[in-house]
Amino acid sequence: MPKAAYYEGNRKVRVGECLSESPGPDQVQLNVSYCGICGTDLHLFHGNMDHRVRVPQVFGHEVSGTIRAVGDRVKNFKPGDHATVRPLDPCRECPACRAGHSHVCQRLKFIGIDAPGALQAMWTVPAHTLHLLPRSLSLETAALVEPLAVACHDVHRAALKSGEYVVIQGGGPIGMLIAIVAKQTGAKVLITEVNPFRLKLARELGFEAMDPQKEDVASYVTDQTHTAGADVVFEVSGSAAGAASMTKLARVRGRIVVVAVFSEVPKVDLFQLFWRELELVGTRLYEPHDFEQAIELASSGTLPLSRLISEVCSLDKVPSALHQLESGGEAMKILVHCSEE
Amino acid sequence: MPKAAYYEGNRKVRVGECLSESPGPDQVQLNVSYCGICGTDLHLFHGNMDHRVRVPQVFGHEVSGTIRAVGDRVKNFKPGDHATVRPLDPCRECPACRAGHSHVCQRLKFIGIDAPGALQAMWTVPAHTLHLLPRSLSLETAALVEPLAVACHDVHRAALKSGEYVVIQGGGPIGMLIAIVAKQTGAKVLITEVNPFRLKLARELGFEAMDPQKEDVASYVTDQTHTAGADVVFEVSGSAAGAASMTKLARVRGRIVVVAVFSEVPKVDLFQLFWRELELVGTRLYEPHDFEQAIELASSGTLPLSRLISEVCSLDKVPSALHQLESGGEAMKILVHCSEE
Repeated sequence: MPKAAYYEGNRKVRVGECLSESPGPDQVQLNVSYCGICGTDLHLFHGNMDHRVRVPQVFGHEVSGTIRAVGDRVKNFKPGDHATVRPLDPCRECPACRAGHSHVCQRLKFIGIDAPGALQAMWTVPAHTLHLLPRSLSLETAALVEPLAVACHDVHRAALKSGEYVVIQGGGPIGMLIAIVAKQTGAKVLITEVNPFRLKLARELGFEAMDPQKEDVASYVTDQTHTAGADVVFEVSGSAAGAASMTKLARVRGRIVVVAVFSEVPKVDLFQLFWRELELVGTRLYEPHDFEQAIELASSGTLPLSRLISEVCSLDKVPSALHQLESGGEAMKILVHCSEE
Repeated sequence: MPKAAYYEGNRKVRVGECLSESPGPDQVQLNVSYCGICGTDLHLFHGNMDHRVRVPQVFGHEVSGTIRAVGDRVKNFKPGDHATVRPLDPCRECPACRAGHSHVCQRLKFIGIDAPGALQAMWTVPAHTLHLLPRSLSLETAALVEPLAVACHDVHRAALKSGEYVVIQGGGPIGMLIAIVAKQTGAKVLITEVNPFRLKLARELGFEAMDPQKEDVASYVTDQTHTAGADVVFEVSGSAAGAASMTKLARVRGRIVVVAVFSEVPKVDLFQLFWRELELVGTRLYEPHDFEQAIELASSGTLPLSRLISEVCSLDKVPSALHQLESGGEAMKILVHCSEE
């Protein structure tokens, strides 16, 4: 029986039957190969998005798959194609859309939260969300294209240049992917992280990594940059400590890129922002070109993406995978194998 | 007797004799015509800069004057010239200086804090700090060139374009000058301010102005911008309320320019920064081209600069002027007439 993982509210996920939905004229149906579990899915599971979700609802959005069927008006895709999904459905009418920023549409529908998601054997989505994948890219690795596109977008927002010194606060999947893209861009990268498993993995991937609770990161960065400070700081920890340290690490006119989703309003040292003419740049999701870059990078085969996959499990294991991720510990990216096709 | 205002520590200012200092080879001595009193002077008076000041020390830095004498190696200035001072003495060696940002030098000496200031009849400064003033510009108005250069710098940092919608939080002298420069750039300007005297002046100068404690600024801006939000927010209030509202007013991809000197670390809604991909830009002081622009604008005669001068007093009145400014109330820019020459 094809299966699906349904969020039912109240921290409950049930695995049940996948209801196949024939694609409408502008839609495509995928056989979902792999779907990664994301921090956002954990937020949803914790009930933080109950106002956006209609239970029981399938969730998930970091996907790779094979096209199973296409709607009448779909021209650019055909059954058998490998594809991933940019899960954004903008209104195309609000001021943000009209200004060319439809990925941060004022009424954005995020597919996987505001509409049914990918943790199921078959998934039907608008054709405009699809990006084709080359056959050379494994469907397992391709499930990382969506978070890799986030990292590409973050690095674009930083206007990162080769040779720059970068600190990434937080070595979870997104922090690690930013590190990989930043290194690819020619930057020198330092990751700060408190979880020993993630610290170890960062070092194994060839990055400098420090525990900010045990070492003086600011002194180290001052030293490494001949008193200047970091050119770019990516704040991916979402912690009060991260918000406090980011303004200490950046150089005069340095850029601080806020990637994390802060669940509480933190204190930010606006005096330092003024004193050193810092720039704090918010960044969210991705644009089409970020997906294209992510697909190209992933297909190059030179990035250690598979090292970020800490586990591959079946749909039946989604509830336990969520529990494992919320406990922290020895997890990075968990992929769910959703169908054999 | 030529006079000078000396800060003596412990909230004490004494008016005594001005000690004339002959200019060294690369220096210039000015007869100081007018010196404005600035928020920074008030901070200094309150003891917040005691670690930088050597008492008794003359302070002040918003200056206009006539050149009295020049050093042997000074070529571009001669006695009788009208001039103003860009009171910055950078190290020219640190990473910030080498990167071309000497106005935010990592070891910047600010003349008037780290070295003797302008509230005296005669003032000797490095020749590299001088900007010539045209004869057509009154020396009284010319004392506003320094704060006007701050406003020019802030507007540059905002990358403000004609037709954009701007909210300026804080209608003191700097907020008002930013409003004037923004309007000159072709922006639509709204000022928010709690002081009734300043609100009234803002309206008299032709600006829309609201009291954020009495009116719902966010709703008004949403309305005025057809739900988009402001293109640019200048935060000049330095208040917790200002730090809280700035992220509510800016549109998707809007810029928030932090001009104020925050004496306490405020909370900043980094979720909104992320959600709407905002940019928060720190801005401090000015660069030489900001001074040139300020002189040009002031000389054009089209700006209502003289309306910002709420009082002109003598050096003897500096202590009472400081008390008046710290009490808030009906003051904007107070100029001190320092010498008759």
